[in-house]
Order: sequence, then structure tokens, then C-alpha cells
Amino acid sequence: MNEKGSNSTKERLLSSGALLICEKGFSGVSVREICSHADTSMNMIHHYFGCKDGLLKAISESYGENVFALPLKFLSKEPKSKEDFLCRIELVFETTLEACIENRLILMITIREQQSPKALLEYMAGFKAFIDIGIDKGFARKELDSAMITGFILDRIVNQVQFSPWINDEFGTDIFNDQSYLKRWSQSNIDVFINGIVN
Amino acid sequence: MNEKGSNSTKERLLSSGALLICEKGFSGVSVREICSHADTSMNMIHHYFGCKDGLLKAISESYGENVFALPLKFLSKEPKSKEDFLCRIELVFETTLEACIENRLILMITIREQQSPKALLEYMAGFKAFIDIGIDKGFARKELDSAMITGFILDRIVNQVQFSPWINDEFGTDIFNDQSYLKRWSQSNIDVFINGIVN
Repeated sequence: MNEKGSNSTKERLLSSGALLICEKGFSGVSVREICSHADTSMNMIHHYFGCKDGLLKAISESYGENVFALPLKFLSKEPKSKEDFLCRIELVFETTLEACIENRLILMITIREQQSPKALLEYMAGFKAFIDIGIDKGFARKELDSAMITGFILDRIVNQVQFSPWINDEFGTDIFNDQSYLKRWSQSNIDVFINGIVN
Repeated sequence: MNEKGSNSTKERLLSSGALLICEKGFSGVSVREICSHADTSMNMIHHYFGCKDGLLKAISESYGENVFALPLKFLSKEPKSKEDFLCRIELVFETTLEACIENRLILMITIREQQSPKALLEYMAGFKAFIDIGIDKGFARKELDSAMITGFILDRIVNQVQFSPWINDEFGTDIFNDQSYLKRWSQSNIDVFINGIVN
């Protein structure tokens, strides 16, 4: 098996695994089913991931990398001014939202199976450090408790994606295709995070 | 069967249903299992709830009522002053958090099965109306897009409860028993919702 073939077997296992785990839950799907769906032999899951748990971990790590690489980039550079600080928060919001929508299948798995991809923890630490720098430089309010608010933006975004079928059923809004809704939603929520609800 | 007996059969079906659906997922549990766990005959689920779907709906409606009755009370009275307006937001936050923790089992089911209890929709409408009154009376910023932020507090709370096993594993914080953490977390998050992160 050449390098390309071996890569594509691994990729197929990751995507079949994601699809089936999302549909049936982690405990509801067998290694046999995943391998059969990926059109490969049972050995291959052991070869690439060790076991079913290893496959789940690999799926959630790939979610972490796909979703948080870009936001982390915006968080890890020191903001030069208040404008730069606020602009980066907008960029973090928008790129996280986009990536969560793009990777919604593995996002759902990571939520349901309560996985801890490394990049998520890095994102949370990066978010805290970014807010702390903002406080230090006088861009953010000194009363903020940075450790308690690292999930503020993420909760909002993750739930918008997690509950998208419900939002669609209940309000007729298809967040995956309605760009003008998404823009309005992002702007309103960034606005509250930055400025709060009172003057 | 007397009134008391009939009530308790119904209660037992609700709590056995909640427990088993939470453990195994809605599609992973049978009517037979639920009835056997509730120590009652198969007829009873049909008598009280029509079918398994009816039981799920009843469980999620009870979540809605248990969680949103009190917050809705605070939202539905017109705020008399800015202080009253802000105080009510704090009360909504704290009572919702408390009720979500208290009802965490049925909260998890409602999330996973993406149910729409009536009281949740009433809460969201009440939240929007409350913010609109706040804007109208000059207590809240006129730039707020009230329809886009009805889930702001709820997302934060629901995820704190939904991810409590993860939070415990990852950070050693037991949100169900650590009152001082919960207080600090509530205050910081209410503060950001009200005042934002910048001056």
C-alpha cells in the first residue's frame, strides 16, 4: 500500500467513524460497522488508531484543530490598540462560527461524547490570556474575571450549531444557508459581549 | 386504583423514563424497559402518554415548567427602574441556573432529543419582551437586537450543566456542589452580559 492509499484509508475511517458515531452514538456503533462503511478491513482501525477509543480521540482532535487553529492565531498576538483588541474579538467570533458550521458533524460528536481536544484547551487558555492583556493595557474593564468567561463566545456559537435543527423547526431559520441571518446574529452577539446590554 | 395510586404510577413512569432515556438515548430504550423499571404494566404508558413519544414530550414539558416558571415570573413584570431591570436579570440568571442544576437529568434529555417545551418558547419570548421594554424605557442600549440575544444567558447556563462532567474532569470543579465557584461564575457572567467587556 503506497503513502496515498494509506492516507486515504485513514481518512475514510475518520469520516465513516464521524458519520456513524454521530448517527448512532459512540456506544451504539461497532468497529466492524465503521470498517465496513469505510470499505476496509478490521485490522486498519487497530493499525491507525489502536482501538475504537483511539478513533474517537482522533476525530475529536481533528475537530479541535479544524475549529480552533485560526481563532487561536488571532488570540495569540498581542493587541496593539483597543481597536485592534476589539477587531480580534470579532475575528475570533466569526472564524469560530464558520469553522463550527463547517465541522458540525465532529462538533456534535465532541459535545455528546464530552471529549477534550487539546486545541480547545489551548483556545480557552489563549482566550483568558488575551482578556488579561486587554485588562492590563486598559482595553478591557478591570473588573472582568477572565477565568470565568473563556466559554462566553464559544457557548453561544456551539449552541447555535448544536440546536440548528431545533432552530430550523421552531423558527424556520436555516443557519447553514441563511447568510444574512448569520451576519445579523453574529453582530448582535459580538455587540453584547463587547458592550453589554446597558450604557 | 385510587387517585394517589394513579398519580404515583404516572410519576414513576416519568422518572423511570427520564433515567433510562438519559442513560441510553430515546431510541435506545424500549417501552417494555421503562414499564419494567417503573414496576408497572405495559398498558400504563399508553394510558398516560399515548406512546413513547408522548412520554418524551411529557418529560420535556415538565423540564420546561420546572426550569422556566420562576424566571418567567421575573421577566413578565414591567421593570420600574434601571435598578429593578438589572436586579431582575440577576434573578433570572440565578433562578435559571439553580433550576437547570436541579433538573439536570431532564435538561440533558431535552437537549439531546432537541425538544421544544412550551415554557422554553415562552421564556424566550418573555426575555425578548423584557429587553424591549428596557430599551423603550432607556434602561438598556437602543442598539440591542433583542430577537438575536434571547439565548444569551440560557446558553451559558445550559452548557455549564451539560458539560459539568467535562468541567469536573478537566478542571476539577464540581459545579453541583461547589457553591463558591458557582457564585463567582454567575457574578462574572452576569457582569459581562450587563456591562460587556469594555468600558
